[in-house]
Amino acid sequence: MAIEQVSTGVAVRLAARKGTLTGVTSSSLAPSFLQANLIVLPSRYAADFRLLCARNPVPCPLLAESSQIGSHDSLKSHLAGLTGQQIASDIDIRHDAPRYMVYLDGVLSASHAGNIAAEWTEDHVAFLIGCSYSFETALIKNGLPPRHTVMQRNVPMYRTNIPLCPAGVFTGATYVVSMRPYERSEIERVRDITRPFVTTHGEPIAWGWDGMNSLGIADISKPDWGDAPLELDGQPLDRSNDNIVPVFWGCGVTPQEAVMRAGLKGTVLGHAPGHMILLDVKDEDVFGI
Amino acid sequence: MAIEQVSTGVAVRLAARKGTLTGVTSSSLAPSFLQANLIVLPSRYAADFRLLCARNPVPCPLLAESSQIGSHDSLKSHLAGLTGQQIASDIDIRHDAPRYMVYLDGVLSASHAGNIAAEWTEDHVAFLIGCSYSFETALIKNGLPPRHTVMQRNVPMYRTNIPLCPAGVFTGATYVVSMRPYERSEIERVRDITRPFVTTHGEPIAWGWDGMNSLGIADISKPDWGDAPLELDGQPLDRSNDNIVPVFWGCGVTPQEAVMRAGLKGTVLGHAPGHMILLDVKDEDVFGI
Repeated sequence: MAIEQVSTGVAVRLAARKGTLTGVTSSSLAPSFLQANLIVLPSRYAADFRLLCARNPVPCPLLAESSQIGSHDSLKSHLAGLTGQQIASDIDIRHDAPRYMVYLDGVLSASHAGNIAAEWTEDHVAFLIGCSYSFETALIKNGLPPRHTVMQRNVPMYRTNIPLCPAGVFTGATYVVSMRPYERSEIERVRDITRPFVTTHGEPIAWGWDGMNSLGIADISKPDWGDAPLELDGQPLDRSNDNIVPVFWGCGVTPQEAVMRAGLKGTVLGHAPGHMILLDVKDEDVFGI
Repeated sequence: MAIEQVSTGVAVRLAARKGTLTGVTSSSLAPSFLQANLIVLPSRYAADFRLLCARNPVPCPLLAESSQIGSHDSLKSHLAGLTGQQIASDIDIRHDAPRYMVYLDGVLSASHAGNIAAEWTEDHVAFLIGCSYSFETALIKNGLPPRHTVMQRNVPMYRTNIPLCPAGVFTGATYVVSMRPYERSEIERVRDITRPFVTTHGEPIAWGWDGMNSLGIADISKPDWGDAPLELDGQPLDRSNDNIVPVFWGCGVTPQEAVMRAGLKGTVLGHAPGHMILLDVKDEDVFGI
């Protein structure tokens, strides 16, 4: 189906549930509806994961979780002023992402599965985490479209050497960042526009070539996920052109990386990269929360 | 006065207010009552500072702030389930720390002042931030007293190269950490004991000599604040003795450092190091909040 035919969070969830939507959920799919990263863990790891998010809210903004252990169809909210019902009233965690990843004892056992009905157990807890698509819509509206959206590519993402604050079993993980190039003169506006998105990574964490160095990123042309940045309008993204610099945000891949590093036992589930679960709340509903 | 004569948060505040308590507020002063770091800013910086704390809750756990701009005698709570009145019912921000620091346009203009009545204006906003004394009491109760408390010295504190997530005017700051040495075999217990103190820095952020390297600390014997660690029971703290290793926590000096780096204009006020404001809530009141 053409992604433009779907316009609300619940419509996207129902399309994924029926199997008519199987592709990535770009920010144009249901503009301004929150998209969420999904992580599903055995219940014994839930408290530590909740704490990991609380201690690292910029890369790991926790929006909601299963209302109780084993709940795949109702949410408990982590957003003050919003209920789980308001975040997503008709939801089935097992079917509502277009594609899923399945890990057994830390090893990938299924990639881009259509659903996780067979893998979900009464001992699983689902966590929904904010996604940077939210602020991309705002950047576009303000005439500052991220370069990868203009070129219809995936946002480049990089591992960094910035440690997360550990929480229980989750130790040794580092920030993952997403990158969007901007002119130096645009950076303060980009910071201002994305600052209110406090539950979806908010303002950038670093910018410029010095910023890249401080994150421990060696080569901007070699992202760890997503597509490599390309030249646009004769403007390459490298140190030869100091007019255009990389700008880095906390990225929702971070909690997935933390989970992978923790060496968890049992079945861990998540959405496939870019195949998010859409929610019923919109960006403006969570401003300032 | 002997510090052992005071036993509640409000008693300490009243003693500081009267001027009978002028020294540091050790964790034995009113055991298990929360102690708070104080930062007072011109109101135009309040929103950015609030965001800095929200984005960096481990080193900058925001407990409460002035109930409105200019309020020095009533608090608005940032702790779910607790009101400002419950956090401290009879408080005067201008007098209730034993000693204060005064900065004008980023330059120290008074050190260890007895009060800030002359400096406080109707445009100031006070912020109270959690302090590691809380979990030290728990470590002592569990038979794991921090070495500096045994030796009646100040905890050593270090600048690191771990960046804070920026927020508005607050850019370029890094974590400050406090350090307590422990045997390797004790680290998991130390992590478990301090983990519940989520509003007062919680569990350590790094440990061991590799952990020290990852924070960018070059020399454990040269803290940036507090007293240098000493040998205890024939156990030095250096790489020659791999049995005892440094353990690092987020430190409430971090937000002060961030404020100093931000180049703020106007009058900024704070408590003098170690001369905290005590609150009416106790450690167990804020567990799990």
